Amino acid sequence: MRCIDWVDGAVVLIDQTLLPAEERWLRITDPDELVDAIQRLAVRGAPALGAAGALGVALAAARDLGSVEAAAARLRSARPTAVNLARGADRVLSRLPDGPAAVLAEARSVLEEEASASRAIGERGADLLGGGAPVRLLTHCNTGWLATVEWGTALGIVTVLHERGLVERVYADETRPLLQGARLTAYELAALGVDHRVIADGAAASVIARGLVDAVVVGADRIAANGDVANKVGTYPLALAAARAGIPFIVAAPESTVDPATATGAGIEIEARDPAEVFAGPAYNPAFDVTPADLVTAVVTEKRTVRPAEGESL
Amino acid sequence: MRCIDWVDGAVVLIDQTLLPAEERWLRITDPDELVDAIQRLAVRGAPALGAAGALGVALAAARDLGSVEAAAARLRSARPTAVNLARGADRVLSRLPDGPAAVLAEARSVLEEEASASRAIGERGADLLGGGAPVRLLTHCNTGWLATVEWGTALGIVTVLHERGLVERVYADETRPLLQGARLTAYELAALGVDHRVIADGAAASVIARGLVDAVVVGADRIAANGDVANKVGTYPLALAAARAGIPFIVAAPESTVDPATATGAGIEIEARDPAEVFAGPAYNPAFDVTPADLVTAVVTEKRTVRPAEGESL
Repeated sequence: MRCIDWVDGAVVLIDQTLLPAEERWLRITDPDELVDAIQRLAVRGAPALGAAGALGVALAAARDLGSVEAAAARLRSARPTAVNLARGADRVLSRLPDGPAAVLAEARSVLEEEASASRAIGERGADLLGGGAPVRLLTHCNTGWLATVEWGTALGIVTVLHERGLVERVYADETRPLLQGARLTAYELAALGVDHRVIADGAAASVIARGLVDAVVVGADRIAANGDVANKVGTYPLALAAARAGIPFIVAAPESTVDPATATGAGIEIEARDPAEVFAGPAYNPAFDVTPADLVTAVVTEKRTVRPAEGESL
Repeated sequence: MRCIDWVDGAVVLIDQTLLPAEERWLRITDPDELVDAIQRLAVRGAPALGAAGALGVALAAARDLGSVEAAAARLRSARPTAVNLARGADRVLSRLPDGPAAVLAEARSVLEEEASASRAIGERGADLLGGGAPVRLLTHCNTGWLATVEWGTALGIVTVLHERGLVERVYADETRPLLQGARLTAYELAALGVDHRVIADGAAASVIARGLVDAVVVGADRIAANGDVANKVGTYPLALAAARAGIPFIVAAPESTVDPATATGAGIEIEARDPAEVFAGPAYNPAFDVTPADLVTAVVTEKRTVRPAEGESL
């Protein structure tokens, strides 16, 4: 199952703001409609955003070659934190001199690569965590096929472990303010047939402290060269709790999420979203947080396993 | 302002489940109605629950002296975590041999003592934190007059600091699942005229890590002899983040919250509430967590300041 794809000259994506109540697929032919879909989180998740950036440029090229540069610029800046969005757009834009067919072929390649990267991440992560009895995992936000074109990153690991009969239970943070855990992860886990419990975000640390979790697995929106990890706000306290409890804190992400140009998390811009998402009054709504490298047991990509807490960089 | 009081032969309390949309005061004459109000959190907060336990026994004594023991038992077990509820009920019950007037006088004493303890906690905490420039505080759940009969514990400290012109801003966790922070704390802070921002619970740790907070101040539902603190779920990750950031983690609570009979937090029963409060599907809903003593910079009561992180016990 793919959350975003190219079908008959249009970008087709499932509107994630309506899930799980309604499975509505949007057919988008205007790049600015795609910018809007990105901004209101109809499509979200760093790898899926890479595909969206790529497909958006292909869409612009199919309509009007003169508009592609400007459309790419609007796509690139639709959201600031995930490096994938800009990278997907830029990669496809680089084929513009070769014409619209080449642009589209490049966009399709981004999609294929994201999908196969996810599967590889799932296998690699399952090898890392699945060495013994079935495990109890805790995750945050949504990192399944809805976030990654296909399979998933952290949920890709869950998927492969579940195929191997090695998942006892998954605790899913509800992930305020937009409830991606309660709305999307629970929907995906139920579809997979994985035993799961949704918990309030504030409950995660003590669920870990009470010995109910064997490992924390999360995705990433951007990973700095030193191993600092930007991910959905609420990730960092999980790493603190995992370190205190002595359990692994695993970050699953494609290589496209790694940003060697950013030395540390201090260089990652944190998107401040509309306060009204949190509260109809004075509020502050940072969308991401940064987990320091020393708390990150392992970063699992489709190509390698890096151990920032042991001093390894990316 | 008192959230619960004895007025003309009845217990009068503000229904906190309706705030901030509606300020509805309930007049309760049946102890079992009070048990129901406690269970559905119309009255909540450890000190206010102490008053509720006390007034509930007085109510039973005013109706039927033969029913008092049984009513006290139902009140005592209406919620398991806060020691104040059972203690308030038991203290007033001990005056039963002296007749209903003595019982009521004892219940009124509990109320007066909770109110004056709160004011003393506020003054003591403000002395601890208010030594320099105006401070930026972060708090969790609700600990104001709504939680404590009058003034507040952690919010009592905010109140006194604000009277002294020493509050720059308060970050208030929304406190899922029941949103006591967004519903009640924001309501109280707005009424006080304190600059504040509501944040998602998961954002608190990174707001602390980014240097936006000078101290964390929270209440407590029960404090073990060694300084382990049970409080609303979501408190423990704040202590982890405060320790990592090197800022104080202050617990404000009346002596009635201290439970010397419980050696450590491991002996505190954690109430598991209805999963449906979190999610309409498989969910787990622990209402409290335990913060280990080594993360607690200071416990401030109306009588003393104890420093568990430095090895002091209560």
